Amino acid sequence: MIPRYARPEMVAIWSPETKFRIWYEIEAHACDAQADLGVIPRENAEAVWKARDVEFDVARIDEIEAVTKHDVIAFLTHLAEHIGAEEARFVHQGMTSSDVLDTTLNVQLVRAADILLADMDKVLAALKKRAYEHKDTVRIGRSHGIHAEPTTMGLTFARFYAEMARGRERLLRAREEVATGAISGAVGTFANIDPAVEEHVCAKMGLSPEPISTQVIPRDRHAMFFATLGVIASSIENIAIEIRHMQRTEVLEAEEYFSPGQKGSSAMPHKRNPVLTENLTGLARLVRMAVVPAMENVALWHERDISHSSVERGIAPDATITLDFALNRLAGVIEKLVVYPENMLRNMNKFKGLVMSQRVLLALTQAGVSREDAYRLVQRNAMKVWEQGADFKTELLADAEVTAALSPAEIEEKFDLGYHTKHVDTIFARVFGENGAH
Amino acid sequence: MIPRYARPEMVAIWSPETKFRIWYEIEAHACDAQADLGVIPRENAEAVWKARDVEFDVARIDEIEAVTKHDVIAFLTHLAEHIGAEEARFVHQGMTSSDVLDTTLNVQLVRAADILLADMDKVLAALKKRAYEHKDTVRIGRSHGIHAEPTTMGLTFARFYAEMARGRERLLRAREEVATGAISGAVGTFANIDPAVEEHVCAKMGLSPEPISTQVIPRDRHAMFFATLGVIASSIENIAIEIRHMQRTEVLEAEEYFSPGQKGSSAMPHKRNPVLTENLTGLARLVRMAVVPAMENVALWHERDISHSSVERGIAPDATITLDFALNRLAGVIEKLVVYPENMLRNMNKFKGLVMSQRVLLALTQAGVSREDAYRLVQRNAMKVWEQGADFKTELLADAEVTAALSPAEIEEKFDLGYHTKHVDTIFARVFGENGAH
Amino acid sequence: MIPRYARPEMVAIWSPETKFRIWYEIEAHACDAQADLGVIPRENAEAVWKARDVEFDVARIDEIEAVTKHDVIAFLTHLAEHIGAEEARFVHQGMTSSDVLDTTLNVQLVRAADILLADMDKVLAALKKRAYEHKDTVRIGRSHGIHAEPTTMGLTFARFYAEMARGRERLLRAREEVATGAISGAVGTFANIDPAVEEHVCAKMGLSPEPISTQVIPRDRHAMFFATLGVIASSIENIAIEIRHMQRTEVLEAEEYFSPGQKGSSAMPHKRNPVLTENLTGLARLVRMAVVPAMENVALWHERDISHSSVERGIAPDATITLDFALNRLAGVIEKLVVYPENMLRNMNKFKGLVMSQRVLLALTQAGVSREDAYRLVQRNAMKVWEQGADFKTELLADAEVTAALSPAEIEEKFDLGYHTKHVDTIFARVFGENGAH
Amino acid sequence: MIPRYARPEMVAIWSPETKFRIWYEIEAHACDAQADLGVIPRENAEAVWKARDVEFDVARIDEIEAVTKHDVIAFLTHLAEHIGAEEARFVHQGMTSSDVLDTTLNVQLVRAADILLADMDKVLAALKKRAYEHKDTVRIGRSHGIHAEPTTMGLTFARFYAEMARGRERLLRAREEVATGAISGAVGTFANIDPAVEEHVCAKMGLSPEPISTQVIPRDRHAMFFATLGVIASSIENIAIEIRHMQRTEVLEAEEYFSPGQKGSSAMPHKRNPVLTENLTGLARLVRMAVVPAMENVALWHERDISHSSVERGIAPDATITLDFALNRLAGVIEKLVVYPENMLRNMNKFKGLVMSQRVLLALTQAGVSREDAYRLVQRNAMKVWEQGADFKTELLADAEVTAALSPAEIEEKFDLGYHTKHVDTIFARVFGENGAH
Repeated sequence: MIPRYARPEMVAIWSPETKFRIWYEIEAHACDAQADLGVIPRENAEAVWKARDVEFDVARIDEIEAVTKHDVIAFLTHLAEHIGAEEARFVHQGMTSSDVLDTTLNVQLVRAADILLADMDKVLAALKKRAYEHKDTVRIGRSHGIHAEPTTMGLTFARFYAEMARGRERLLRAREEVATGAISGAVGTFANIDPAVEEHVCAKMGLSPEPISTQVIPRDRHAMFFATLGVIASSIENIAIEIRHMQRTEVLEAEEYFSPGQKGSSAMPHKRNPVLTENLTGLARLVRMAVVPAMENVALWHERDISHSSVERGIAPDATITLDFALNRLAGVIEKLVVYPENMLRNMNKFKGLVMSQRVLLALTQAGVSREDAYRLVQRNAMKVWEQGADFKTELLADAEVTAALSPAEIEEKFDLGYHTKHVDTIFARVFGENGAH
Repeated sequence: MIPRYARPEMVAIWSPETKFRIWYEIEAHACDAQADLGVIPRENAEAVWKARDVEFDVARIDEIEAVTKHDVIAFLTHLAEHIGAEEARFVHQGMTSSDVLDTTLNVQLVRAADILLADMDKVLAALKKRAYEHKDTVRIGRSHGIHAEPTTMGLTFARFYAEMARGRERLLRAREEVATGAISGAVGTFANIDPAVEEHVCAKMGLSPEPISTQVIPRDRHAMFFATLGVIASSIENIAIEIRHMQRTEVLEAEEYFSPGQKGSSAMPHKRNPVLTENLTGLARLVRMAVVPAMENVALWHERDISHSSVERGIAPDATITLDFALNRLAGVIEKLVVYPENMLRNMNKFKGLVMSQRVLLALTQAGVSREDAYRLVQRNAMKVWEQGADFKTELLADAEVTAALSPAEIEEKFDLGYHTKHVDTIFARVFGENGAH
Repeated sequence: MIPRYARPEMVAIWSPETKFRIWYEIEAHACDAQADLGVIPRENAEAVWKARDVEFDVARIDEIEAVTKHDVIAFLTHLAEHIGAEEARFVHQGMTSSDVLDTTLNVQLVRAADILLADMDKVLAALKKRAYEHKDTVRIGRSHGIHAEPTTMGLTFARFYAEMARGRERLLRAREEVATGAISGAVGTFANIDPAVEEHVCAKMGLSPEPISTQVIPRDRHAMFFATLGVIASSIENIAIEIRHMQRTEVLEAEEYFSPGQKGSSAMPHKRNPVLTENLTGLARLVRMAVVPAMENVALWHERDISHSSVERGIAPDATITLDFALNRLAGVIEKLVVYPENMLRNMNKFKGLVMSQRVLLALTQAGVSREDAYRLVQRNAMKVWEQGADFKTELLADAEVTAALSPAEIEEKFDLGYHTKHVDTIFARVFGENGAH
Repeated sequence: MIPRYARPEMVAIWSPETKFRIWYEIEAHACDAQADLGVIPRENAEAVWKARDVEFDVARIDEIEAVTKHDVIAFLTHLAEHIGAEEARFVHQGMTSSDVLDTTLNVQLVRAADILLADMDKVLAALKKRAYEHKDTVRIGRSHGIHAEPTTMGLTFARFYAEMARGRERLLRAREEVATGAISGAVGTFANIDPAVEEHVCAKMGLSPEPISTQVIPRDRHAMFFATLGVIASSIENIAIEIRHMQRTEVLEAEEYFSPGQKGSSAMPHKRNPVLTENLTGLARLVRMAVVPAMENVALWHERDISHSSVERGIAPDATITLDFALNRLAGVIEKLVVYPENMLRNMNKFKGLVMSQRVLLALTQAGVSREDAYRLVQRNAMKVWEQGADFKTELLADAEVTAALSPAEIEEKFDLGYHTKHVDTIFARVFGENGAH
């Protein structure tokens, strides 16, 4: 975890306090289930809930662990200090440490996913708002970084919306992937504990019972979870790169928001750096780097080896904390992005009218001009624009061979931007719902 | 593509012949839609279907491409050679090369996914069959490679089944991710072609229209597709590692099938190498290596750059062909795996009865022996097994302090394997359906 | 291997013909050494060289392998068909298949490295030439994509030269890493063959003997090799991204070369796409994806397992062929890159003189103006440039408060480009040698 | 950073205190050089050294940064609080923040490398010691996890030594890669500062001047650094996997050290888990995951963008801290590894004498028996061993057809372990030096 790229709510999920709290809840619910089964006395199960409002003392547990060399035993010892040794003696009966640890990890991942889903909702809301705001803001579409045909800024926001919405769907599924718990014993056979305990604990913790576990919950679930975070991070990078391009000095179609008093902004007004989106580009790499080790974690030896554990101690907090931060930063960037519609028009007209050359070429051939002639006509006028800065439409209107084939009105029509935006509503309707209305 | 790890059906999907065939279908369906809209004459649309049964001549197309330097134009030129230049002149009207290329890629990925789904069904069938066959074949469960508690070979197959079944679900979703097509023009605005064409072509090609595209279909879809293949590959590795462990000389609980006449197998009967599962371990890495570049492909510049294209020329065929081969190899390995139940029992009893030491320890404390005493009693008998090769149960029965706490029958009961297998039916029911029956 | 991104010389290294040729040489040299040791008869060793000029028949070897199921035996059988079964009977004596296979792989990697080194020399030569050509071609340096201070195009080429030169050094070391051979038997103990054979064969094949091998040459060597290719690929991407930025419509400081007759270039003169460098961006990802599996290959079980083999069948040809192609493409792009110095100046002056605002600010404070006042003075003139398109220097010269602190000559001096280029020679000397001369 | 996998010395390198200390030294040395050049007054340069023994107050600097929003300015402000505002006014003159930040990062990486080199020396010393200790401890070599031919435990340690020694060489080079500094200004032109300052500072900080930088030191250097750490991590994994295999219950040729009193070790003496090497397997993945993002960091836009920065905030401390911890853990594991030579012999003889079957086969053919007959003879005796647990040598000696070809002494000789160990000294000499002596 890099503190400057971390938000408290997500960090809290990975704190020792939260971990011990979840451990406690799992143990307490397991006792209830064991009492229901008649395996342990009801009063012992009830006694565990005496600690319901206790904040466990992490330092004390660490102290005990320094002696016992075992984290779960240390916790249970500390728990007994709260509820009484006699009352606590049936806690954890029939369970394996992994039952607690693995179920806890998944509770944490589910909670992390819930925060991330809320983050994505913020990003989606911002994208939708900006999409409608700039639905008709024309700018040049670019392939290969080169001007192609007009499009609108609203379509750019809308496609990021559609991409993020897909990401949200994926995250829902990824959450589902890890929303399982297991209380199945040393090798997953339930030899020492009834499956009913697992069912009860999972229900209480918002999980499904893992249909078949070994000592651990299978790690293909987690691989899929982190792979999904990696794809979402890549979509963040996609948006960040677009904004970085828009903000470059020569393009200047948008800028990340600068507070009016922000140091240096007015003595060097050109020097407003897209540092937030550059940062997002890097954060995307950090999230993505969890994907390969998560996949390498899948192949454990027999009923488990512990190689996955150190990896998860790193990537589980790091990837979720970083993605949470990145999504929030992204939402802010989009909400406040300063868009420059005039610059968009100016850029589009850098080579006056030239982006319409293909339409004119097509119109000439449709008007009966041979392909070779049409090409020659467009070329000679296009080159005047390219080399001498002439205006394409003006040149065409002045070219007798062209006007022999196309009327002035027909030529004018080729430069009508409405031709390019006529289906924006249709696309918005596809992305945002039935009629594309806000 | 590595020829020795490739199956013809999947290879065929990525052949130039298949590609041109799909191009043809897209163009022909697009012409139909354009005729429906009245944009092109019906007879020209119908003329395109004259080539319905033509096998396009790849060498001829390459020849034309050498001149035109453009693959789609080369194909269209060749198509015109079949249906007539006059009839062909409306083909591709209003479309962009990417419309054809991207929609084709997705058709190929969908077909590849269909083959992979069928492959997974084979793996699943084999795993289920072997799971039921060995439902009650007891073997030792191992954590950290060290004997823990008994489990059954059927549970091992069953958990791989559950993992592969999850993989199949993921693949269905990954297929859905890429089952879109786009016919939306140079920057995705439908400026030159009506959205109805896209809808018609997609319906005919088994795809959904991409709700919002640029010049290309967004690459987060493909990132998710390849990430999913990577997770499935990791599950293959998981199974392969298990079998490799089982086949090692000291374990010998299973062997990959050797045909009786296979060279060398009987002069060196110990030297049967698990080369298929070792190979699968490597193939898993090959599939997985597509994941990161697929994610790096997501962030394209503006309405597209072509950086993704070379990556996909590599990973799209390679990852699908390799995974197809691996899944088939895996199905064969599982179907024919030679299992040695006697060796499983012998391994479990390597340290006679010692795997039951924890149960005995628990029983002693439950019988009222203090934790310290129970530990001492178990320890002194366990060390005789560990150091002198004694039999644990025999020693316990001969230890007066032990028998003072536990009756011979109670001691016997601790060595009952049924204790460990009593929930196998429950687990099978969870994995395979309601009652766990075959 | 993707045929369109492959050059024949590198492809040939990975052909079956080359492989069998190397196998042959290894076997023949080993026979010589065995004869020197008196282990096999001299005439049998000599007989092997009868096949010196034979082109082995791959189809025939495949045919034999279909029966023997063993590639090395198939080759030896075919060899015997050339030199006589009697003469051939001592070939391969005491050796293991891996001795041949692993030594061959390293011969191939060394040869591949030699081609790549020559490729890098081409890239270096092109970069050096263009660096000197544009040593004094001023353009704006950019941080965060935003104009910062002037630099020169020559410095850009020079830094790519320095980076590629580092890459070349790394490749030399990577070559050294894999320039070892092993003829050490089934588990590396030389039980059946004298170490002198290994020494002789390695000397003849241009390799060093692997100091200690198992059945295989240790794979950390190969991991380092492919990691190095990955770093070089990343440097290619670095150059490619720069060129792609330079070619974007709004920047247009350079273009990939277009042959005058290239289709479409003059009817849409603005639409020259940097497809080669976009392609290089993708190829870099393809090379880089070999790095992780090569690292995963290091941990083999005991004296070897065969998991690395399928990975290497993929990545060894693919990564070297792709990198070879990419380096050659890059050399061509650089050699022929069309540079537009006037556009560089125009871009620099987009906001007239504003890039000098920081120098003016510094000069004012050094002239005794308080920090706050200096800032205010710069700001009010800078905003005129930014908002009204004024010329910064003109405004400053007309601002009485400014001219009270700085003389016109002093103001002029702040706009002197020579201030920024005065150390270019020093840097060139560092990069290209003592005096920076061509 | 995961606290439990972190050692204080390496953690300290990445503390804010260390960072500010290095910033201070860079600024102070730069002032000296500026004074030497006559750019700033000597007394101001000398005044900076008044803070020579100051421990900078991180909280205070953070406080200032909260206002200034700029880390380097905050530090300089705090520095002025120590040495006086007047004295401090020439500090940082002509420099850019990146000059300080990038040079500092490289100082930190160099120091981290020095610790890692010392760590590797510990690993090497342990490996060498154990190699000599077990030089002649025979155990079975395994290919594919299957018994092949005898080798010795000393050779296993020796090959890990050779691999780690290669890793050490690589790390030396990786250290060299990042041992550069840059004080070259906003775009690397030295416009505002003389190259002599860079030279002086670098000399004082133990770095070389970066021959050509932009605003930043080129990131191919760092990519190579992290790639190298990734290869070393893979070698750690290689050793860890070997030990994990040796410790599995069925093999039990070695165990990680257990203190005699370690909980649970004697009540379940079989249950000593190789948790340290399993942990190392996971830590290797964590180190390795830095490689890809470090490579993605190479391609920065123009003279720099800041996308690399967040990545490095994560991977620079994390990868070095984790690798430091892993190397130390590995050294301890090797030093104290409990080796069981008797178990090695017992494993080798699991199928009594069968591992010699190939030698016998060869001997028979060399004695003139036809290949087919030799094969039949070996096979019929081998199968008695395999199926009935007979002793191979005994069977051979009792087989008249065998003894017709080979004398009892010749048969005996085939089972001589000395045949397999005769070149151990040679190999040790290659690995450890001239005569292989300790």
